[in-house]
Amino acid sequence: MLKDKCGLFGIYTQKKEDLFHLMYLGLSALQHRGQESAGIAATDGSAMYLQKGVGLVSEALHENKIGKRKELAAIGHVRYSTYGASVLDNAQPLAARYSGGVIAVAHNGNIVNANNLREKLEYSGSIFQSATDTEIIIHLLARLPGKKIEEALPSVLKELKGAYSLLILTNKKLIAIRDPWGFRPLAIGELNDRFLVASESCAFDIIGARFIREIEPGEMVIISENGEKSIKFARQDEHFCIFEFVYFARPDSRLYRRDVYKVRKALGEELAKEKPVEADVVIPVPDSGTPAALGYAHKSGIPFDFGIMRNRYVGRTFIQPTQFTRSLGVRIKLNPLPDIMNDKRVIIVDDSIVRGTTSRMIVKMLRDAGAKEVHFRISSPPIKFPCFYGIDTPNREKLIASSSSPNDIAKFLGANSVEYLSIEGMVKAIGLPKDRVCLACFNGKYPILE
Amino acid sequence: MLKDKCGLFGIYTQKKEDLFHLMYLGLSALQHRGQESAGIAATDGSAMYLQKGVGLVSEALHENKIGKRKELAAIGHVRYSTYGASVLDNAQPLAARYSGGVIAVAHNGNIVNANNLREKLEYSGSIFQSATDTEIIIHLLARLPGKKIEEALPSVLKELKGAYSLLILTNKKLIAIRDPWGFRPLAIGELNDRFLVASESCAFDIIGARFIREIEPGEMVIISENGEKSIKFARQDEHFCIFEFVYFARPDSRLYRRDVYKVRKALGEELAKEKPVEADVVIPVPDSGTPAALGYAHKSGIPFDFGIMRNRYVGRTFIQPTQFTRSLGVRIKLNPLPDIMNDKRVIIVDDSIVRGTTSRMIVKMLRDAGAKEVHFRISSPPIKFPCFYGIDTPNREKLIASSSSPNDIAKFLGANSVEYLSIEGMVKAIGLPKDRVCLACFNGKYPILE
Amino acid sequence: MLKDKCGLFGIYTQKKEDLFHLMYLGLSALQHRGQESAGIAATDGSAMYLQKGVGLVSEALHENKIGKRKELAAIGHVRYSTYGASVLDNAQPLAARYSGGVIAVAHNGNIVNANNLREKLEYSGSIFQSATDTEIIIHLLARLPGKKIEEALPSVLKELKGAYSLLILTNKKLIAIRDPWGFRPLAIGELNDRFLVASESCAFDIIGARFIREIEPGEMVIISENGEKSIKFARQDEHFCIFEFVYFARPDSRLYRRDVYKVRKALGEELAKEKPVEADVVIPVPDSGTPAALGYAHKSGIPFDFGIMRNRYVGRTFIQPTQFTRSLGVRIKLNPLPDIMNDKRVIIVDDSIVRGTTSRMIVKMLRDAGAKEVHFRISSPPIKFPCFYGIDTPNREKLIASSSSPNDIAKFLGANSVEYLSIEGMVKAIGLPKDRVCLACFNGKYPILE
Amino acid sequence: MLKDKCGLFGIYTQKKEDLFHLMYLGLSALQHRGQESAGIAATDGSAMYLQKGVGLVSEALHENKIGKRKELAAIGHVRYSTYGASVLDNAQPLAARYSGGVIAVAHNGNIVNANNLREKLEYSGSIFQSATDTEIIIHLLARLPGKKIEEALPSVLKELKGAYSLLILTNKKLIAIRDPWGFRPLAIGELNDRFLVASESCAFDIIGARFIREIEPGEMVIISENGEKSIKFARQDEHFCIFEFVYFARPDSRLYRRDVYKVRKALGEELAKEKPVEADVVIPVPDSGTPAALGYAHKSGIPFDFGIMRNRYVGRTFIQPTQFTRSLGVRIKLNPLPDIMNDKRVIIVDDSIVRGTTSRMIVKMLRDAGAKEVHFRISSPPIKFPCFYGIDTPNREKLIASSSSPNDIAKFLGANSVEYLSIEGMVKAIGLPKDRVCLACFNGKYPILE
Repeated sequence: MLKDKCGLFGIYTQKKEDLFHLMYLGLSALQHRGQESAGIAATDGSAMYLQKGVGLVSEALHENKIGKRKELAAIGHVRYSTYGASVLDNAQPLAARYSGGVIAVAHNGNIVNANNLREKLEYSGSIFQSATDTEIIIHLLARLPGKKIEEALPSVLKELKGAYSLLILTNKKLIAIRDPWGFRPLAIGELNDRFLVASESCAFDIIGARFIREIEPGEMVIISENGEKSIKFARQDEHFCIFEFVYFARPDSRLYRRDVYKVRKALGEELAKEKPVEADVVIPVPDSGTPAALGYAHKSGIPFDFGIMRNRYVGRTFIQPTQFTRSLGVRIKLNPLPDIMNDKRVIIVDDSIVRGTTSRMIVKMLRDAGAKEVHFRISSPPIKFPCFYGIDTPNREKLIASSSSPNDIAKFLGANSVEYLSIEGMVKAIGLPKDRVCLACFNGKYPILE
Repeated sequence: MLKDKCGLFGIYTQKKEDLFHLMYLGLSALQHRGQESAGIAATDGSAMYLQKGVGLVSEALHENKIGKRKELAAIGHVRYSTYGASVLDNAQPLAARYSGGVIAVAHNGNIVNANNLREKLEYSGSIFQSATDTEIIIHLLARLPGKKIEEALPSVLKELKGAYSLLILTNKKLIAIRDPWGFRPLAIGELNDRFLVASESCAFDIIGARFIREIEPGEMVIISENGEKSIKFARQDEHFCIFEFVYFARPDSRLYRRDVYKVRKALGEELAKEKPVEADVVIPVPDSGTPAALGYAHKSGIPFDFGIMRNRYVGRTFIQPTQFTRSLGVRIKLNPLPDIMNDKRVIIVDDSIVRGTTSRMIVKMLRDAGAKEVHFRISSPPIKFPCFYGIDTPNREKLIASSSSPNDIAKFLGANSVEYLSIEGMVKAIGLPKDRVCLACFNGKYPILE
Repeated sequence: MLKDKCGLFGIYTQKKEDLFHLMYLGLSALQHRGQESAGIAATDGSAMYLQKGVGLVSEALHENKIGKRKELAAIGHVRYSTYGASVLDNAQPLAARYSGGVIAVAHNGNIVNANNLREKLEYSGSIFQSATDTEIIIHLLARLPGKKIEEALPSVLKELKGAYSLLILTNKKLIAIRDPWGFRPLAIGELNDRFLVASESCAFDIIGARFIREIEPGEMVIISENGEKSIKFARQDEHFCIFEFVYFARPDSRLYRRDVYKVRKALGEELAKEKPVEADVVIPVPDSGTPAALGYAHKSGIPFDFGIMRNRYVGRTFIQPTQFTRSLGVRIKLNPLPDIMNDKRVIIVDDSIVRGTTSRMIVKMLRDAGAKEVHFRISSPPIKFPCFYGIDTPNREKLIASSSSPNDIAKFLGANSVEYLSIEGMVKAIGLPKDRVCLACFNGKYPILE
Repeated sequence: MLKDKCGLFGIYTQKKEDLFHLMYLGLSALQHRGQESAGIAATDGSAMYLQKGVGLVSEALHENKIGKRKELAAIGHVRYSTYGASVLDNAQPLAARYSGGVIAVAHNGNIVNANNLREKLEYSGSIFQSATDTEIIIHLLARLPGKKIEEALPSVLKELKGAYSLLILTNKKLIAIRDPWGFRPLAIGELNDRFLVASESCAFDIIGARFIREIEPGEMVIISENGEKSIKFARQDEHFCIFEFVYFARPDSRLYRRDVYKVRKALGEELAKEKPVEADVVIPVPDSGTPAALGYAHKSGIPFDFGIMRNRYVGRTFIQPTQFTRSLGVRIKLNPLPDIMNDKRVIIVDDSIVRGTTSRMIVKMLRDAGAKEVHFRISSPPIKFPCFYGIDTPNREKLIASSSSPNDIAKFLGANSVEYLSIEGMVKAIGLPKDRVCLACFNGKYPILE
């Protein structure tokens, strides 16, 4: 089973218009959530059209050459993970025909009991054409013939454990679903009577649409010619993913009623309070550490500056790695500004440390650029446990913080000090009750298990 | 449900070698059976690899760039039909995972009770990701969990009515199946201990392999590390498709123990006996009428010549048709040699007339080139009924012979005469007992119905 | 310098219309003259558009996506030779800007004093961006500033020795030129007031156009808004290329006032008279030997039949040759019909033997298929000398007939006999005076040298 | 003639190695200088290889599939401008053959007397295959046959007026040239005995190479097996382009002995001194205004923050603009953070205003996001005159500052105030003598004219 860390976008409109441009822009705004494949399923009310491709939205999706279509609704997906040649088979939306007609599904999250469900389904005769947990959802639905889709779905969803924000498209309806724990975000918007749904609000902004509200955990919203209907299919048991705030969402998005950028700055401020150190300059690891570094600088009174520039155009190079290019390491992506660091005591801020290998190269880069002291500050607590709800973290053995103290990590990185934000500090900066967020990757307390 | 008029090729080898070149050549030799998409599924004994693409084998299939694989077996498919955007979804082989593991299926033929079966399957929870009847076979198999595939297959096949030559690949076995009626051909060959299977023997010739025998109607052949095993899953009730001889198979293939080219010449000879006419020259409609025209000329003593040349490179043009290109009609593909026809009485021979529109343009072309008389001779009887077993014939209303006599057709075509071979003459030329061939498209007697 | 064996097509129309479809079809009909690249230059009267690509016309050329253009004239080219990576640089038409404005040139033939001219031009300051002799023509023209193009061209052409059929396009004029020796063909046609020019008349047939006449050797035809003007820029000294008849032109073309197909049959008849042998069947090497084999059969009274089928879809495969595919040799392209040859004395007819390696594989193929005797008959004399005028023949050492007698060749091929048509027989069959054809490849008498 | 705003990168190595990876990375680091096409010419000492393509380096350039080459030297180019279909013809390096052998040229800058030179060349017989002024340089060189290239070049360069940083590659030598005025940058670096040359030093950093020095204005450096030789071909008359500092170069590059990032911050500081205003927050227009905004904030003591986020993935979308997407305007690329601006007095800093249309949309965006006051501050003086030396500025009429005062511009933008840095302040911040920089776009004093 693959882990999905993806982005969703959907539109329903009574205008019957070609939805490609809106879908294209909406998915582009969510591109940071997945850059490996992209797809759109659209319906004109009687037939469904599907296109998927490998790469960025601009590489994977193309305007219909035959002419404009009168489309009623569409759902789209950008995908993070790829596993070799199978990339296209697992691209989403996934479409199939079952007793209820044609259906397309796009999914963000990870079903933890997927293997279990799939084995049961296979044993009772289901066949699978992808390696995604999303296909399970269609199979479960197909096992309930004769029911309307909104009546069948609650029984299907009851069987699922884990993280799932879902968009479902039939030839007549668009359905948006968020799991009872609310792990992954999903929001509703509006653009001149068009109903919109997106993983993050930044997808509304790009097309000048209005953010309305987030879908509630355990809520299913059905849009059809009869208008919008909301069903609570399960009791809400909120455990928002903290990592959407720390790293994954776009800073200009609004999540769980919080501005992401503002939260990230607050994390940096809290970090400055908890883990102060004397220094001459605060610099971010670009771009992930920038808002927190700014918050740290504001609170500490130490000047903020840019000490590292990003090579924006080599992030997705397709050249085969050679011994030489490997030896260049992080230098291919990041370039230090010696003038900023030379003979200075430098605080460098990032959002997290996973394996520690990149951070180590960054410390060396700063030292080579003349930094007198390097203090690494992390705007989240140590990641000690893997995520089962859709964030693609490695095994415990590879998570440096699972076995090493901040002091040990400082030695490994070659830094003068390494300090993390505390769980309490993080929760406070985010401003949500501690029991309504998922802290599993930090404290190992998993809200649900298989 | 789409009708499949396709080509199959498969290899099983204990050598564990990269099978791409052999598959590529074998499928290329069968390209006349389908030019719209091509695909290969291959296994190295533990993992299955699938590639499919649109167009000719040379356009659709590409060597693995990562390096050679140690492959145990592979099956491939070339496909005839396309229906708009869905072309890739319906391309074969079709692969899926079920309780028995991963499986790939390639299919030539048409299941007549497919709609019926699909409805039943959908009602009991199956989902479909293609519009092919092939997917039904995998679903039926998946409904029999816990059984070995060769034990489950006979029950599955008992449910199928219609035409099916099948290749099935698992990570351990290659299985070749021919329906009890034997509508579509399927033959076994050998190349230095490699087991081969192909729709037509010409696919063996191209790689220097040896033709061994045809698979019997109602026979299933399983190749695995335990060698070759043959199972008769149903009583044989032979109804070979006559059209494979008349038009569809390659002239250098061997089918039902007959040489196709020789049969086609014999059809022309028989036609000359049945439907003689005084004339100066016998010419074929290239390339379909060439062997029969040669037979007709031999038997009648009237000189054979080429009167029409084919524009070999414009058969598959992708330019958008315009009013002007449509007005050119058959001229884009065929060019007359006026010198051959001028002031002559011409017998033109083709294998069949379907709608009559192309034949009409050809008669006009010969007249314009100076032919004094044009006698159309057809080396098969009038097609009056649609085929349900895999030949893509139009509805009865569009079959000109279903409502018009040869005289009426002659008037429509502008020919001096139009004559067909009789059913008796055709059967005699082919040399098979009349009750062992399918004559449905000529006499409406369908061996099986839904 | 590369040798060009190419096809030309051009249109001039007062209608101002999008010429893409006509150009596409015309070039497709000439595809047999060059399959490695294709290009079109078109003018709307004030700006010139150029597109070129690698491969067949259907692969290389694409309709303008922006919309239809109002075009005044266009010239196009299909190219035979490729030399590695340089394929696009040498693709034609070649376009450049010089003191007289923008110009595009398409060329069929080979300038024998090209190296000489290029050295002179380079020494006096010219730079070259292709490896084609065509670029020389533009340079020579650019050296005559201030002259009208039709006034400058005669001086330019006087410097050229060798074979050149040329199409030249400016924003106002289309100019068609044939060298004084008339090595390569070039003909004028008409389609509803559109002026057409093409290497062979079959390009007129495909679009329903009328063949008017061939351009005379040493003639230049200029089409502009002032109509059509003909200039004789040199005294005619006809030496038509015999090989256009023997092999290169399409059988349905009309060249030098002869029907190519009729000439090829006549070559076979003459061969039957000159080189008879007792046998049971006459078969062609498809497709090159087919008309001559038919002529041989007619004249000799021995039955004509097809003994070898062509694998039409593997002619242009792009798979990397491996040891195994090389071992398959001609089998990949040709497949014998054993039933036709078994226990028979076979006459096999081809148009020529160059190196002898393919012919040898064909003889072995016939023997393996059961032929009792194999008599190879060639419908042209032995090729003993290389061509310098645009046919891509190898060096003398590789021309098997340059050093071996027919008997020796029979031994090399494994044939019972090998016999060629005599020069006299060939000239007689063609029906042109011996002093008006080029026989250099047969007798070494080169009409012009560098 | 097209204007070139481009990037150059070159390598010469005695190691004879495949240079693709180094070229690919070096050009990627210069991607900000041109994103429309990319190309590499490389020599193995006897043959030259050329590849060019449309788009980013990652789209345009591909590793040689045939295998690694033993290359002696290579030059590469990224290009800014595109003009419709002609994009590939004008891509660089430009290669040609002349009396001195094969040569490739890559050019950054703009020759102001190009039309004049081209007319002269055309009149005396030269033909042009591109619309670039670069081709003129090869022609001029070709007019001096018999001379060594380094002897011929000074005479050629004397004829050129305008901006030219050049890389020239022959099969034996790499030559780097900078015009006497030094408009465009060009620097020398070293990586383990490999000689490097690049438009900006950031191209050395990405591969871990060492910056050595800038090439002097009027200097030509020749690298060959005889080592490195420097020739002063003209008296130096420095007029460095100010805009490389203000906007064009990468912040982590080092130009004219100054750190670009540091200069940009200093421009912001100077601006704060010259044009202060009371406000609550300083925000940049990302990314162009970021360093200056930080400088402004530091100097003024007003907090720096990010108020606008960039949609990184929609910068280069290829969807056809529609009325709807046009109505979205700058929103497609930029997204405001309302929380930062709401009810605040905002200073927004950018590097320049050209037409004013984008700035106007940004002001509206800030107002909509709740800004109480909007003060636009520009870290360079008003651009009143077009550039003739390689920066692609529009005509005077379209330069808003050529006819409008800051107050008028403020009205047009809807800003509370608009203020520019003075010429004196800019020169002071850069720290170069006023007579050694080109200020033509600000004051109309052009160092050279045609």
